[in-house]
Order: sequence, then C-alpha cells, then structure tokens
Amino acid sequence: MFNWKLYLVVILGFVIILSGFYANPIPLIEEELESALETLNQPPVEPVILREGNTVHIEMTAQVTNVEISTGVFYNAWTFNGTVPGPVIRVKQGDTLHFTLNNMDPNMPHSMDFHAVETSPSKNFVDIMPLEHRSFTYAANRPGVFMYHCGTAPVLEHIANGMYGVIIVEPKDGYPTDSEVDREYTIVQSEWYAEHDFNAFLDGSPEYVVFNGDDFTLKEHPLLAKVGDRVRIYINNVGPNRVSSFHIVGTIMDRVYTDGNPKNMLYGLQTVMLPASGGAVIEVVVNEEGDYPIVTHQFNDATKGASGILRVTADGLDTGEEPAMSH
Amino acid sequence: MFNWKLYLVVILGFVIILSGFYANPIPLIEEELESALETLNQPPVEPVILREGNTVHIEMTAQVTNVEISTGVFYNAWTFNGTVPGPVIRVKQGDTLHFTLNNMDPNMPHSMDFHAVETSPSKNFVDIMPLEHRSFTYAANRPGVFMYHCGTAPVLEHIANGMYGVIIVEPKDGYPTDSEVDREYTIVQSEWYAEHDFNAFLDGSPEYVVFNGDDFTLKEHPLLAKVGDRVRIYINNVGPNRVSSFHIVGTIMDRVYTDGNPKNMLYGLQTVMLPASGGAVIEVVVNEEGDYPIVTHQFNDATKGASGILRVTADGLDTGEEPAMSH
Amino acid sequence: MFNWKLYLVVILGFVIILSGFYANPIPLIEEELESALETLNQPPVEPVILREGNTVHIEMTAQVTNVEISTGVFYNAWTFNGTVPGPVIRVKQGDTLHFTLNNMDPNMPHSMDFHAVETSPSKNFVDIMPLEHRSFTYAANRPGVFMYHCGTAPVLEHIANGMYGVIIVEPKDGYPTDSEVDREYTIVQSEWYAEHDFNAFLDGSPEYVVFNGDDFTLKEHPLLAKVGDRVRIYINNVGPNRVSSFHIVGTIMDRVYTDGNPKNMLYGLQTVMLPASGGAVIEVVVNEEGDYPIVTHQFNDATKGASGILRVTADGLDTGEEPAMSH
Repeated sequence: MFNWKLYLVVILGFVIILSGFYANPIPLIEEELESALETLNQPPVEPVILREGNTVHIEMTAQVTNVEISTGVFYNAWTFNGTVPGPVIRVKQGDTLHFTLNNMDPNMPHSMDFHAVETSPSKNFVDIMPLEHRSFTYAANRPGVFMYHCGTAPVLEHIANGMYGVIIVEPKDGYPTDSEVDREYTIVQSEWYAEHDFNAFLDGSPEYVVFNGDDFTLKEHPLLAKVGDRVRIYINNVGPNRVSSFHIVGTIMDRVYTDGNPKNMLYGLQTVMLPASGGAVIEVVVNEEGDYPIVTHQFNDATKGASGILRVTADGLDTGEEPAMSH
Repeated sequence: MFNWKLYLVVILGFVIILSGFYANPIPLIEEELESALETLNQPPVEPVILREGNTVHIEMTAQVTNVEISTGVFYNAWTFNGTVPGPVIRVKQGDTLHFTLNNMDPNMPHSMDFHAVETSPSKNFVDIMPLEHRSFTYAANRPGVFMYHCGTAPVLEHIANGMYGVIIVEPKDGYPTDSEVDREYTIVQSEWYAEHDFNAFLDGSPEYVVFNGDDFTLKEHPLLAKVGDRVRIYINNVGPNRVSSFHIVGTIMDRVYTDGNPKNMLYGLQTVMLPASGGAVIEVVVNEEGDYPIVTHQFNDATKGASGILRVTADGLDTGEEPAMSH
Repeated sequence: MFNWKLYLVVILGFVIILSGFYANPIPLIEEELESALETLNQPPVEPVILREGNTVHIEMTAQVTNVEISTGVFYNAWTFNGTVPGPVIRVKQGDTLHFTLNNMDPNMPHSMDFHAVETSPSKNFVDIMPLEHRSFTYAANRPGVFMYHCGTAPVLEHIANGMYGVIIVEPKDGYPTDSEVDREYTIVQSEWYAEHDFNAFLDGSPEYVVFNGDDFTLKEHPLLAKVGDRVRIYINNVGPNRVSSFHIVGTIMDRVYTDGNPKNMLYGLQTVMLPASGGAVIEVVVNEEGDYPIVTHQFNDATKGASGILRVTADGLDTGEEPAMSH
C-alpha cells in the first residue's frame, strides 16, 4: 500500500527546507569557518613611532581583534595594531619613512599600502606572510591627509574587515591658516557590513557607516572647542565603497584643502565631497556655545551611524552632558 | 480515520501564507497609521519675506500637504509652506535674518536648519512643538547656494518626507560674471521613496529622483532662454541620500562656482559633481534655438525623473510645444 | 474515489512553479525577444577621421556587435563602430567637426551626443533612423576629456548597452605640463548589467565595472612606462550610473585638470572624484620599476572589474609577466 503519510511528510519537509534556503542561503561551512576565526582576539599593540632627524621609524602590527562597532555589537576585525581605524600617523613633508609591519595574524598574509608615498607597489606594498615581519623605506614628499590600508588581495575584504587608517603629511611650509588654528582633530569615515560576508561587501549596502570606527564614541565623547576657536579637522573617507558628503551642522567651512594639499584651497563650503579614499583639511570657526552635529549629509549613512558632535563651550571643556542634538 | 483532505488543505494554506509573507512583509499596523496621517492636507501658505535695512524678516510654516510628485501620484508630504521644495529664499551677504517658524503640524515637532548661517544648532535649530511658533536671529555672512531643511530627529525622515529648500546668499561684491547674466533659475534635486517607509529611506533606492519636487514640471514648463543668453542656474542637490552629476545636454558650463562661492571658480565643465546638500552656481551660454535637456548624468536617476528642458527660442518666449527631446 | 496521487502531484507542481517564479520572474516573452536580437553581430568598422585645415571629418557607425566583457562572457552590445567603448576621437580646441553617423542597426534609431560641442540638441543630436545616415557640423571650442554617447531615448538603455566613448579636445595653448609628459593613455570607466535588463540598469548594481570595456585587458596588457616617466591619463567615467574614485596605487597625482580644462588645476591628489560623465587629465611621475594597480577606490567596483596595471620598467617595454599585484 502507498505510504501517503510518509509522502506528505516528505513534501512538507521539502517546503520547509526550500523556505529556509530562500531565507538564509549561507552554507554551514562558512559559519564554521567564521566561528573558528572568532577564537582569535589579539589585544591592541601600541605602534612604535620614533623620529631620528628626517627619518621616522614606524612599527605597526597586522592582527585580529574584536572591536565594538555599535553599543554591544562586536566585529572580529582584521586590524592594524588592534584598533579600527588603525593609529593616526603624522609625519612631515620630506620625511623618510622606515616602516616595519609585523604580521601577527597566523592565518593569512597582510600588507601596507600608504597613499602618502610614491613607490613601486609590487616591491614595497607586498604581502607579509603569517607571523613574519618586514621593513620598507620610502619618502613622504607630498602633503596631505592620506589613507593607508592593507593591499593584500582581495583588497575589498581586507578594507571592509577593518584594515585602514590615516597618515597625515604636514606641508613643509604649512597651511596659510596655520597660525589661526586652535584645535585639531582627525575623523575617518568607514563602513561595516555583515560580519565577514564578502557578498555584503560587494553589494555595498553597509549595516553601519561610522566615524572613527564606531557609531557612538563621537556622540558620547564630543570633539571639544572653545567659543571663538578655529577648529581644523583632518578627514579621510576610507570606504571601502561609499562616497561621503561631509558637513558640520551650524557651520560653513572657512577653508577646505582638497586631499590636504595647501594649494587646493576652497572657500565657504557647506559640504565637502569625498571620494572613497579621499581626504581633506577642513577648518570652521565656532562663535557660539552649543552642540554642532557632524554628519555625512548622505543621510541614510548618517542614520546608520556616521554622526558625531562638536561641542563648543565657554572654556573649551566638556560639560559631560548628553548631546543636545541627535540625528 | 486520518483526514488527509484536511491535511492537504492545511499544507496548501501554509504554502500560500508563507509565499504571501515573503512577498509583502509589511505589518498591517503601519498601513493603519499611514492612513491616519493622510487625512491631514493643509493648503499651501505664502511665506512672509520683508526687508528692513539689512534685516530680513522671514516667516515660514511647517505643515503637512499632499503634493503631486509624478502625474497623478501624490505624496502626503511634510513641507515648508505646503510645497516641496519649500520657497526659494534670497538674501544678501551680511544680512541679519529674523526667522520665525510656525509649526502647523499637530502631530510632531519640526525645526529649521539653514546651511547659510553659522550658529549654534542646539540653540537656534531647535525643535518647535506642534502648533507652536518661535523666532531666531542669525546672520548670513557667506555667499552661496545653501540647503535648508528640517533638523528634527530622525532627520532622514524629515528630509525624505519633503522638508527642504534652498536659500541663496548673494555675494556682497557679486560674481565676476554678473554683468553678463541674462536669466536666472533655481533647481533643487531630491528623491522620493515609498511613502513614509523609513526602511526605503535607509535603503536609498528612490522611486523618483526629481527636479523642483516632481518629474514633470520642468518638462511641461521648460526653463526659457533667448538665443545668445547667458543662463545662470542656482542648484542644490538636497538628497537626502544620492549625489548628483548635473549636466545640461548641448552645453559646456562656462563657469561653475562650487557651493556658490565666487572664489571657487571652475571653467568649462561638462558635468558638475554635487554631494548631498552641495550647491553650485552654474552658467551656460546658449547660441542656438532648441531644447536642451537638463539631467543628472547618473542616468538611472534621470530615468526616475530627474530631467527637464532648457528651451532656447529667438524671442525667449515659450513655444508651448512638447519637448523635442526626451530622456 | 478521490485521486489523491494526482492531488499530490498538483500541489508539488504548484510549489515548484511558485519557487521557480520567485527565483526567476522574467517572463518568457523577454527571453524570446533577446534571442532574436542576439542574432545580429556586425563586425567592427574603422571610424573615418580626416583633417582638412581646422575641419575634422568624422564618420562613425551605430551597430550591434558581440563584445567580450569578461573572459568568456559576451554581451550583445549596442556600439559605436563595433567596440565598447567606441573609438577615442582627438581634436584641437577651435576645430570644426563635420560628423556623420551611419546607423547600421536595422532595429532602432540611434544618435550622437558629443559633450565636447555646444549646440542645440534638438537639432544636432537627433535620432537617425535604422539603416540611415546623417551629417552634422559643430565646433569644439573648449578643451577637455568629454564623454560622447547615444542620446536616443531611453538614454539609460543606450548607454548601458554600450554606446559611449571619449572625445579629447586638446587645449589651444596646451597644458602647463605638456613639455614634461612622456606617455599618454586614455581610460574609460563604465558598467555592465544583466544583459538587456532595463530593471537592472535602473537598480544600478552592475555585474561588472570595467576600464576600457572589459575586466581583463588592462591586466593582461598593462599600460607601460619607463622609470622616470611622467604619465598622463585622459579619463572619463561614463557610468551610466556610478561615480568613480579613481586612484593609481603607489602614486600621487602631480596634477589633475578637472574635466580636462587647463584652468582647473589641482595638485597632489591621492584620488580624484569623477561624477557620471565626468572627465579629468591626470599626471603621475613613476620613479621605480614595478606594477602599479589602477583602480576605482570604491572597492566593490574595483572587485567587479575596474582595475588594471600600470607597468614601469627600465626600458619602458613590457615584461610579458603576469601582474605582480592583484586586487
């Protein structure tokens, strides 16, 4: 006799499996790999930065570290020195960089691509094997706010997982507005996608867009200024995928130096367009007390986290209050 | 005896319900809320703009009004003064603005963030409660084509629902090309998403991208010019999410002033890149009769509505004809 | 007696059909249309470009040709002269162009919109009917790296299917850096979507983003330079939808002329922002041997194909080796 009960159960199972497959097509093998990677959580390492005349010795690590990208949300990131973004490096135009990368990641090669240097990528941005280190020498001859990032293929994956930061090269003769600047800050805009999901990186719809690595620090700990200050911000939008429309509410940028070169001077901008890996030096003058939200005016990205606060007080000290404005 | 007929019907029902859920996961409660909001349709209100020496008194409303965004397609918009975009405000560099916002919306607070003024957002861009009004005083000291918008959280929602416009601040000493300009127009590029669908705003794939609020007016009523005219366009791409690649077919922009500042002069551009909330003053000279399509050259956005016509005739008057070019 | 076997088969069939419908909602009629179009594959035709004093006679074709967009992946493209992008046209500022378009496509009209000329689109960028040809005369009075494209509605479809290229207008008085330039190349960035899928064009998530039409040529046949060369690249990002963040790894752009106008000079850029249909002249100096990857730093687009290699050798000749860097 035909076993129609079994038949029905088989059909039902088929329907359920099919539904599950549409809803969550990730093969099990990926989840397993991911959980294996999550076991690695290397504590942050201070970078070594030592000046010797015009030579700057820089020692950094490539490592795997859990970072908090939103309150209570952690990402098992591929990092430089255990933070995302990596440390801000600051040198002077004309410096020679003697750079060492120590790859602490036992699982894969990493590398360093400094946008600040003009050199042969196939010689000086090469992969460093797991648990190896290697040194390079090159010059930083042009001023600017440059991205640095891991250049190991697939580059998209290494950037999306957290391997980027900013290197500032101060112009030899300074910026024409140097003498008026009271405060300086650095902001890095970047994106977080579903954890280690290459298809999400490719699709380019981030879950979070952030300033300086997360969506809360620049709100909980505002940038500070005193009434009357000229505030300079070194910014770079490291992507990996999105462009940025950077804006500070309540201000007009007195000066913008495109990519941080003093010769590329713009005046009175409400918003500055940053390509992926584009930088700028931005200066605003703040004459009234209060909270000035910092955003990308591509407002879905701001809503996904790319907002912060510039707090202006009479004495330049923090009030400790919650931000008066939210976006 | 096992009721296998019933069993089959249950499975079939399960399949159908499941399919429906995948196809349309919107909970009923949202639809109900939406229909409640749709009952409000406040007729447009003329803004009050009065000059008194160097002080300009500006009185505007926040209100809820149905606007036509495509032929026969209406959006129950959150607006300034009942139109999207809101009224074009035009003042002179150095003016003091005495601004009053009358919040006619009984349901929620609104506010005004003028990109044209440098002031404390937490003091002067604050929320005005339902059915209340409030005044602010600040200066417009820098020239440009500035976005204004509601700055009430979530800002993305207030902009996406229609609360934006342009305030032009004329430079004290004018633009170097002022004497040659024959015609002036203002264009605002913006996006419309599925009505009041915050997830759609976040996703950032608009249903319509438009010039001056809809996808038909600038085609049915072209901008007009006479053969030989220099046409100046004040433009701002208010987003909330997309950037713009603004272009006028058949022309090369003789001058572009980035963000409308006369010091930021560019020459001979085919296309100008506008960030979200980025402005420009654009000038073209048109020496032949005909229809010149105006587009964002991000052509999916143009196809979604962001196109118009600049019509050049011997006498500068409209022919009343259908556009000779469509995009 | 109830035929429950038949009943089960019907349900099963229903489930399978439903699943198939969700997975692939394309109606059969479209597939049939597509296969009809695919039968047309017109071999490339050399463009005619003849100078006569300051008049340049240009004869081009509109035609349907299969092009290889990725290794082994072909697209039945709408093209100018049978290649995507179409031929690079190079003229001098002040030239008069006498242009003839020969529409070899038996199925539909095409047209030519040169961004390099200032003329009435409704007179001089008009549709040319299937198997007809027509000539136009206009001047190229402004220097730059201009997009050209088919302007027939829907323009999005004609561009997305391959009808674009670059026309370079050399400045009358040259660029200030002309005497130092050793090599010149042209790069066109563009997108490929699911073949002839208008909804995919509208959605704007390309399957491939490419330099000069495909994702392999600029890797297999690198741009070449000799140690010490100043390399100039004429670039235009023709879209149709995406913006570009153009970058050459290991270099900093010594000069960037926005849209190719010598008056729009920028210095020391790491990355140049290109709107859709935005051009630039870019110059880099390469002082070390090696492979320098060329990318859009919107890295999902680079991963989808928009990368190439600039190879620097002691003698400026190719080594024939595989690229030393991949992205």
